[in-house]
Amino acid sequence: MLETLGINAKKAAQGLATADTDIKNRALLAIADALIKNKDYIIERNCVDLENGKNAGLNAGLLDRLMLDGERIKGIADGCISVSKLDDPCGILLDEVTRPNGLVIKKVSCPMGVIGIIFEARPNVTVDAAALCLKSGNAVILRGGKEAIESNKALMSIMQDAVQSVGLPRLSVQLVEDTSRQSSVELMKMKDYLDCLIPRGSAGLIRAVVENSTVPVIETGSGNCHIYVDESADINMAARIIFNAKTQRISVCNACESLVIHSAVIGKALPAIKAELDKKHVVIRGDERARSVCPDIEAASEADFGTEYLDYIISVKTVDSLDEAIEHINKYSTGHSESIITENEENAREFMQRIDSSSVYHNASTRFTDGGEFGLGAEIGISTQKLHARGPMGLRELTTTKYLIFGNGQIR
Amino acid sequence: MLETLGINAKKAAQGLATADTDIKNRALLAIADALIKNKDYIIERNCVDLENGKNAGLNAGLLDRLMLDGERIKGIADGCISVSKLDDPCGILLDEVTRPNGLVIKKVSCPMGVIGIIFEARPNVTVDAAALCLKSGNAVILRGGKEAIESNKALMSIMQDAVQSVGLPRLSVQLVEDTSRQSSVELMKMKDYLDCLIPRGSAGLIRAVVENSTVPVIETGSGNCHIYVDESADINMAARIIFNAKTQRISVCNACESLVIHSAVIGKALPAIKAELDKKHVVIRGDERARSVCPDIEAASEADFGTEYLDYIISVKTVDSLDEAIEHINKYSTGHSESIITENEENAREFMQRIDSSSVYHNASTRFTDGGEFGLGAEIGISTQKLHARGPMGLRELTTTKYLIFGNGQIR
Repeated sequence: MLETLGINAKKAAQGLATADTDIKNRALLAIADALIKNKDYIIERNCVDLENGKNAGLNAGLLDRLMLDGERIKGIADGCISVSKLDDPCGILLDEVTRPNGLVIKKVSCPMGVIGIIFEARPNVTVDAAALCLKSGNAVILRGGKEAIESNKALMSIMQDAVQSVGLPRLSVQLVEDTSRQSSVELMKMKDYLDCLIPRGSAGLIRAVVENSTVPVIETGSGNCHIYVDESADINMAARIIFNAKTQRISVCNACESLVIHSAVIGKALPAIKAELDKKHVVIRGDERARSVCPDIEAASEADFGTEYLDYIISVKTVDSLDEAIEHINKYSTGHSESIITENEENAREFMQRIDSSSVYHNASTRFTDGGEFGLGAEIGISTQKLHARGPMGLRELTTTKYLIFGNGQIR
Repeated sequence: MLETLGINAKKAAQGLATADTDIKNRALLAIADALIKNKDYIIERNCVDLENGKNAGLNAGLLDRLMLDGERIKGIADGCISVSKLDDPCGILLDEVTRPNGLVIKKVSCPMGVIGIIFEARPNVTVDAAALCLKSGNAVILRGGKEAIESNKALMSIMQDAVQSVGLPRLSVQLVEDTSRQSSVELMKMKDYLDCLIPRGSAGLIRAVVENSTVPVIETGSGNCHIYVDESADINMAARIIFNAKTQRISVCNACESLVIHSAVIGKALPAIKAELDKKHVVIRGDERARSVCPDIEAASEADFGTEYLDYIISVKTVDSLDEAIEHINKYSTGHSESIITENEENAREFMQRIDSSSVYHNASTRFTDGGEFGLGAEIGISTQKLHARGPMGLRELTTTKYLIFGNGQIR
């Protein structure tokens, strides 16, 4: 039954494709306004989700992600206002060439058309994602988790009213109300209606989408991020950066999960790093050489090096060269974010060139891989694939391009 | 057993990622040279394919595509020399920003890593595709059709020798020698080794890849291209352009397959167009109104409007407005190339904005959608999807990007 949503979305997309920046911004401001005005209703519907969640035995963390209060709704509304202030990513002339035969060929940015987004329990994603799709001129079909369905339905009807109120197609934003596994699979096969599908959530969700979708997918999020402490590292800087990258927020994809340390400095570096990590009781799992330096850390298995803990745990691998470090990281990383700590510019250059990840740092925390931190203004996700977008994705990554060719009768 | 090729390719890709432009160009010139030197051997192996093809009952067209002679081999070698002269698409600084915290963030182009290409009977693709992948710093795994396997094996060993002779990894270019359906499916699932998969060939092949691949795919090629003759068209120009777009080469994806004609001019336009198309005995299949103008044309069924004939056949749909034309085209086109013939600039603008295709023309033949004609210097295919690349793809489209972030101890 999702086909109806597809048909609606394709029709709405045609209206959006010619919508000017002003009307799109007015839609975003109308949504922000309506969210605030209807906050009691949103909270009421959210309470139903919370009640159902408690009955279903959701843990405190999940219930917290699910919860909407006045402040959070204000935050979501402010997000829409911010997006309205960003530059319109559509209609940008990217290239222009006049061919010897007189054809003028222009490459311009334009909306993709219809974007599908599959996500989990956070109802704020419903509005954030819709706002970014609207601003980039795309119709969107959102498929959130069943835990947030009542909140999502409320948010969706408020957004649809607001979008319609400024004169844009009401069904520019739509929600899949059926939260069965079936509906999710059906969405992944809607190649005739969706131009792109973006999964946001757990590694399991993302894998399921990549494996089952016939719609082109942008793979996001999973991050087994490494920091390499080079032979020439400033050890104090290394310890400070690692403490930040591991502990500032453990549940995020750009948190550091694994250290690689040069054998020439591990004797000095690991105790200093451990002293920092001990402040937050981080469990360290090291290889044999790491344990010979700090005997009280746990033993790392091979599986540890490939694990994204999202927890107060970190693995340590000892290497004898920059080459070995690069090889280890390219083997185990998910291509998200990696950092080298070194005072040696040549080693930094080599590391940055050879590490096969979306974002490669020299002397900084991996935690900066984020649309806001990169100055994109907003973020729809962090791509770990190489097609279309890589790293934090903003509005520009929600557009495609089109060639416009102007002739006066040219034939070949 | 394709896993070995995957492992080899990933290793070769690491060597290629740091290869400078000069060595990549020398590899291309060495390939060109080796092809000429070994042309007798190539022709000998090609004869085996031709013999097998005749025995298997391949038609004359397929046998012609399969055939290599001295002149064709020279053409393939010249292609490698041309690619060596193109700008290196890697290492280009695309964006640079210094953030308030002092982080310097650079976005640079870089190779994707490993590209898979699945194609059919033309052995020239083996070298063309390998040359483009090499120049863009990518390792490539080629999987050609069984009809060309002996030619492909010969071309591959010649290329591997040449690549190795300049000091690049020998296995930068590899061929899947098993041409069973199985090997093709296996390649589509090699997500751990392939960064991108490009199918080149029939609509059936492309569909199979899109439906089965877990590797990100760039969909190429299928083109149900339309030309719309507007109310304000220059009828002579329309007839000339349509004759060219339909008949200059019927078997290609940018050939015109369907006409959409405004009812206000069909009485004058269709006879003029028909007079041109009759010169090459093109079968015209029209709707009722078209047939009332030219009673001797065939009747078009609904299926005709969705058919990419690749033959001397064209369909005609009559519409009463620009809106109706746009709606019809967006419904039936494959998103490849469409053209409007009109003297009305406003109609042209609206058509070009609202038509949802990779390349939209005003007063020119759809046959120009081509890497060479667009000035890209070379072409790996024409993307009809919206992710990553849309329209003709050159070297730039075989690269991805990477963020390099330079800090001095920044933490979040």
